[in-house]
Amino acid sequence: MKKIGKLHVITDVVLQDRFSHVALAKMAVAGGADTIQFRQKEGSTRALIETAIAVKHACGDVPLIVNDRVDVAIAAEADGVHLGQDDFPIKKARDLLGEDAMIGGTAKTLAQARQCIEQGADYIGFGPIYATGSKSDAGMVKGLEDLREMVSGVNIPIIAIGGIAIENAGEVMRAGAHGIAVISAVCCQFDPTEATQRLVDQIQK
Amino acid sequence: MKKIGKLHVITDVVLQDRFSHVALAKMAVAGGADTIQFRQKEGSTRALIETAIAVKHACGDVPLIVNDRVDVAIAAEADGVHLGQDDFPIKKARDLLGEDAMIGGTAKTLAQARQCIEQGADYIGFGPIYATGSKSDAGMVKGLEDLREMVSGVNIPIIAIGGIAIENAGEVMRAGAHGIAVISAVCCQFDPTEATQRLVDQIQK
Repeated sequence: MKKIGKLHVITDVVLQDRFSHVALAKMAVAGGADTIQFRQKEGSTRALIETAIAVKHACGDVPLIVNDRVDVAIAAEADGVHLGQDDFPIKKARDLLGEDAMIGGTAKTLAQARQCIEQGADYIGFGPIYATGSKSDAGMVKGLEDLREMVSGVNIPIIAIGGIAIENAGEVMRAGAHGIAVISAVCCQFDPTEATQRLVDQIQK
Repeated sequence: MKKIGKLHVITDVVLQDRFSHVALAKMAVAGGADTIQFRQKEGSTRALIETAIAVKHACGDVPLIVNDRVDVAIAAEADGVHLGQDDFPIKKARDLLGEDAMIGGTAKTLAQARQCIEQGADYIGFGPIYATGSKSDAGMVKGLEDLREMVSGVNIPIIAIGGIAIENAGEVMRAGAHGIAVISAVCCQFDPTEATQRLVDQIQK
């Protein structure tokens, strides 16, 4: 069984511009994040690959997952990909990346989650648990009840996402999430390293 | 030796919005184009793949090449990719797509062309031969003299691009180009099928 991380920090340079992807990855890793996800929609493929390679280097032994772009993940020798419903198909990603790659799929419903699993996903990203300003197309808030239902309905780890912060990370974990994924709760904080440490504390409680 | 087409029609839905990628591919193939290149920078990966699959179907036996996105080319089972200097690296694309895939590289200089060949390109896209409004980052116009130099400097087919139309396609071919790639000269014409036919006539002269 692959080891799926419990704190996925998605590096973001759109919601904030104080820190680069590389700087954020370094700070998150220093704070104890056990998975970094590189998400970037703009820029040339060459530039995305160059940044992903630099982020991979910054991650050290912490796994790097690339959002959506399987081509970038391959070129940067990332550890996996996270694929939303509008992204590259999971099954084809598994064919390309092999069994060792970590592949996450976003699911908003149990039916989508089961389809992700059938296609070969290692974990499910589920949310938004709470209202979020980090992703304009996040959709309707799910809440803890839906999270519990998702957790009991599938047999692979659920990574909760959407509006998760220090204040609510504990209850999300108690609802059965394997772990959490955050953007603003690290990238947009005054001290991303410290913010990461505090999230790790909540997860380990 | 792979058979490289002589008239590459790049389908475009930014410069014009009368026709879809699929409609343009059909009309270009009906007019005698022997390579279709799908280039689209906007939209989700899933949407790009769906469109590329539909274009591939519209192409029939005519090879389909995807611009930049190796992931989309793989998912759509396209015949190859065309890679600019800011796109996915040619060598990695060759590794992923295999020897049978058609891989073109854009080169603005002889040094870049030689690098493309070293990395495994099957043909070189060279231009802009003339001033063009189709690509905002096309760079400085090269002209026929530079084209002749490129043709004599490398040992793989040169596909000339940039401002090529009925009026000048003949002189481009006489300068030694293996073929031409066009956007506006087909996509922005009143009748794309007829425009393609007329370009084929110029190439075959």
